[in-house]
Amino acid sequence: MKYCSLCGAPVEQRVPDGDNLPRHVCGQCGTIHYTNPKVVVGCIPRWEDRILLCRRAIEPRLGLWTLPAGFLENEETTIEGAMRETLEEASARVEVKDLYTLFNLPHVNQIYVMFLGDLLDLDYGPGPESLEVDLYREEEIPWDRIAFPVVEQTLRLFYEDRRRGSFGVHTGDIRRLPGEGRVYDIRMLKGR
Amino acid sequence: MKYCSLCGAPVEQRVPDGDNLPRHVCGQCGTIHYTNPKVVVGCIPRWEDRILLCRRAIEPRLGLWTLPAGFLENEETTIEGAMRETLEEASARVEVKDLYTLFNLPHVNQIYVMFLGDLLDLDYGPGPESLEVDLYREEEIPWDRIAFPVVEQTLRLFYEDRRRGSFGVHTGDIRRLPGEGRVYDIRMLKGR
Ligand SMILES: [Zn+2]
Ligand SMILES: [Zn+2]
Repeated sequence: MKYCSLCGAPVEQRVPDGDNLPRHVCGQCGTIHYTNPKVVVGCIPRWEDRILLCRRAIEPRLGLWTLPAGFLENEETTIEGAMRETLEEASARVEVKDLYTLFNLPHVNQIYVMFLGDLLDLDYGPGPESLEVDLYREEEIPWDRIAFPVVEQTLRLFYEDRRRGSFGVHTGDIRRLPGEGRVYDIRMLKGR
Repeated sequence: MKYCSLCGAPVEQRVPDGDNLPRHVCGQCGTIHYTNPKVVVGCIPRWEDRILLCRRAIEPRLGLWTLPAGFLENEETTIEGAMRETLEEASARVEVKDLYTLFNLPHVNQIYVMFLGDLLDLDYGPGPESLEVDLYREEEIPWDRIAFPVVEQTLRLFYEDRRRGSFGVHTGDIRRLPGEGRVYDIRMLKGR
């Protein structure tokens, strides 16, 4: 951010009175421009013993597999957002049932909120952001071609819970470790 | 938003190619400026059979009681944010245990993420945004002077769960109904 979005004057980065973090402050109108983490919402769309995965048609991680998920929009709930993303990315209608995971990704200023969903029919297909969309059994999941650690971790929890016969709500932190490789530190909060 | 925060030129509101919602788009550099919901994080700080409430020293709802909570900052996790807000508003240290509620407030573009916490000691007091801070037993809660419906609903779930002897994770939507009064529609997602 270089300019004030309200008056167009240049902003400076400084700690406002009574605050303890540097913010973008307008030199002309005085507005403090806060930036905050974004919420990504999505679901695990289930059909009998299979789940729906999407192969990404866009960067980052083009060509790899993911669950339908995307940024929560203003004026929608997390469930509405999860249903919208499933429709946009997989042309699929789901009944979104239960909150399943909440992950913090502080290195990219995101929190992921994923739900359990049930496909309402088998009329699905790739939306503009997907190359292909298909149903997978556990033994068919392309574990080495999953786009994001948060999606892989969500899927691992899902199959663990399914084997145990009980789905909890899981919370955890996923941080990318410094360095060249794609290495992540995943810590689950003691769940219930 | 009237001006582009990157180049300072005026923005226009239009639906970008491949999108389906109007966004602020810069007429000069073409940047699309998205706005997204904000995350509020907080906790229920417990000490034996009492919980810590804060009386607000700031608008909105100045003078009314609330749980420590505030906007999640970049680069922090929801748990770190809940601990920070408890320290800032109540000068209190908590161990944050479990995710407790996730509420959607689509009319104000917020989602509330509240945790269960345990006070580590009794050294608490009002921070700059609080008039007073004190421990309350259930029968002492000032139900008619709680600042926000999301806080009241969180407290009601907490005491219901405590009576049942089991704390779940609860998700729901809270919407302000049109009209003059402060009337809200509260819908819980079938929880576990
Ligand atoms: Zn300004
Ligand atoms: Zn621009």
